[in-house]
Amino acid sequence: MPKISIKGKKMPLSPIRKLVPFAEKAIERGKKIFYLNIGQPDIKTPQVALDAVSNHNLTTIEYSHSAGNESLRIKMAEYYRKRNVNVNKKNILITTGGSEALIFTMGSITDPGDEIIIPEPFYANYYSFSTQSTVTVVPIITMIDDDFALPSIAEFEKHITKKTKAILVCNPGNPTGYVYSKEEIRQLANLAKKYDIFLISDEVYREFIYGENTEHYSILQEEGLEEHAIVIDSVSKRYSMCGARIGCLVSKNKRVMKTAMKYAQARLSPPTFAQIATEAALGVDESYYAEVVAKYKLRRDTLIDGLKLIPNIKVSVPKGAFYCMVELPIDNAEHFAKWMLESFSDNNETVMVAPAEGFYSSYAGLNQIRIAYVLNKKDLKRATEVLKLGLDAYLNR
Amino acid sequence: MPKISIKGKKMPLSPIRKLVPFAEKAIERGKKIFYLNIGQPDIKTPQVALDAVSNHNLTTIEYSHSAGNESLRIKMAEYYRKRNVNVNKKNILITTGGSEALIFTMGSITDPGDEIIIPEPFYANYYSFSTQSTVTVVPIITMIDDDFALPSIAEFEKHITKKTKAILVCNPGNPTGYVYSKEEIRQLANLAKKYDIFLISDEVYREFIYGENTEHYSILQEEGLEEHAIVIDSVSKRYSMCGARIGCLVSKNKRVMKTAMKYAQARLSPPTFAQIATEAALGVDESYYAEVVAKYKLRRDTLIDGLKLIPNIKVSVPKGAFYCMVELPIDNAEHFAKWMLESFSDNNETVMVAPAEGFYSSYAGLNQIRIAYVLNKKDLKRATEVLKLGLDAYLNR
Repeated sequence: MPKISIKGKKMPLSPIRKLVPFAEKAIERGKKIFYLNIGQPDIKTPQVALDAVSNHNLTTIEYSHSAGNESLRIKMAEYYRKRNVNVNKKNILITTGGSEALIFTMGSITDPGDEIIIPEPFYANYYSFSTQSTVTVVPIITMIDDDFALPSIAEFEKHITKKTKAILVCNPGNPTGYVYSKEEIRQLANLAKKYDIFLISDEVYREFIYGENTEHYSILQEEGLEEHAIVIDSVSKRYSMCGARIGCLVSKNKRVMKTAMKYAQARLSPPTFAQIATEAALGVDESYYAEVVAKYKLRRDTLIDGLKLIPNIKVSVPKGAFYCMVELPIDNAEHFAKWMLESFSDNNETVMVAPAEGFYSSYAGLNQIRIAYVLNKKDLKRATEVLKLGLDAYLNR
Repeated sequence: MPKISIKGKKMPLSPIRKLVPFAEKAIERGKKIFYLNIGQPDIKTPQVALDAVSNHNLTTIEYSHSAGNESLRIKMAEYYRKRNVNVNKKNILITTGGSEALIFTMGSITDPGDEIIIPEPFYANYYSFSTQSTVTVVPIITMIDDDFALPSIAEFEKHITKKTKAILVCNPGNPTGYVYSKEEIRQLANLAKKYDIFLISDEVYREFIYGENTEHYSILQEEGLEEHAIVIDSVSKRYSMCGARIGCLVSKNKRVMKTAMKYAQARLSPPTFAQIATEAALGVDESYYAEVVAKYKLRRDTLIDGLKLIPNIKVSVPKGAFYCMVELPIDNAEHFAKWMLESFSDNNETVMVAPAEGFYSSYAGLNQIRIAYVLNKKDLKRATEVLKLGLDAYLNR
């Protein structure tokens, strides 16, 4: 039998999706599940975006420009300029989701065996895309006790080698909910310049900021970082249109853009209908963002209130994005997550959580879970109750 | 300034798109261009597909299953079974275009430095995707004098090494228009089994067969090849919906499917609206294919009739797909293609062709061009006239 590749074997199963078979069995047995495991928002996609697709007048669905429709890139640049990020259409490459922007970035700046430093816990698929590009992830542990704040710059410097090509951060953080301060971003920027490496910032949760004194500061706002800064973005969460598959790569480094464009040309073009939906979504009033953020802030507060009632857990209160890391008084969160689906229910209801292990490349986080607070207030309240009852039953089983 | 990767530098510019700036200048100067360079069909997308998108009733554009919607995979399997390819939904992974199916395939079966044997000339992006995966393309030259038929099996065996992971063919061929016979496929299948390597067949032009005694034979029809056969497919050309970006990877090898699924999970899901369009398109009557093929056959015949009037050129009459390779009595086809855009016009009209160099990884084909016959009959007739006049003027310049 012909062989699977080494990297194919190394590719991780999605930590978010690997418990799905257990959930399916629970449903077959008639249980109701509250899904706290996946970042699929229930918020409606802006009606203008849905309508733009309904009203499409295409007769042939042609390839678009490999960098995405020019009209879309112009609108996207306007969106950034409203957020004090001074870019134009030439700095933007439309991709098939933020995923593809990351793949193009890795392809443009790394060769097999190169290293990328990533504060962990990190978005699990960073590890997948690194494996796909045969790039080594060098993790720098951040701690739940510090709310996953940026580690000291000395800690980063310890890990920089000749093979280090970039530092990759997620801001606001998935799964941590941490929002880097301007000062932290500046420290990272100085580090990138000092060692002449790239600073990649995944800013797909830019709009989702809840802290009262918290403001999002993009690496693209940092002067003098033009050649080093690469932003990964996506409209999936911003406009609750995860299935559209539109993201973008944003950089002022012309050689990066030219190289990424070669990868873009190879795969021909991003999806047409999704571009139509996105261009319309970009036209929403600024009040749209405020409304959505208010909704998520309420959810965050509901979640935190519920979690406060659970004894002996550690919670990192998220300042952004819509995830919350929780440390449980147990040894193995994956075992707990499976047990909740297989062996527990209260009033025939249970919850599904994501074990945090998959968000670490080290063995830290075995006793942590990630909660996505994408449910409505009532469901979230009940979900935390069920989680409390479940944890209690688990500890006394 | 931080460095671009070696593979990023090696990534080729699209040979089809790299002359675009010259075309744009020609248009600015008021010239009309007949585009013979790009495989963007003018045929209308099936109305049922366009309507399905118009009538979508989504309120939130959610992630779909990473393997694509189950209902789509079921319909796709039905399509194959009608073509004597006995597969089910589990053998199908829906991808973002055939491009992604190729990327997943390479990721699943190759590691950096591995080799893939490809008869050349080949679809230019095979070289791009190989570069992206740091896989070495080992070309086996096929000749315009033989209409690019399969070279002898001995020729393949000469190039098989310990690093060879697969043979990749395109059937019907882009850019050759060649359709492999059942006997040729069987020879390749035996070779794959003998050396225990994969046989990858890009069958995106399956429906476009014009030869009277020519029938498409899929590698999936070949018994005993279940573990070795991987088919790359796409609905882009089949339903004239290139911009939708839906393709698939089809294989009965469970380990390949399981590994490809990990790559699919990492990028989350294929585009939602495109899946809706595709599922509807799969419902077209069989007569749809016959009508489209009749149209293309007429175009092929028109093109060949026109080319016959041009002296001293070699034409490989295509039996399938919608490309035609032509050898010109010149040294450098890229120079000629640029000259046609920059310096020639007849009645203010010119043609744009794709220099064939980009379809070769060796230096063969420098004097060849690829013509995509995706224009209507009248335009094609005029385009060949303009090509004839241009070539004459070029030779006498």
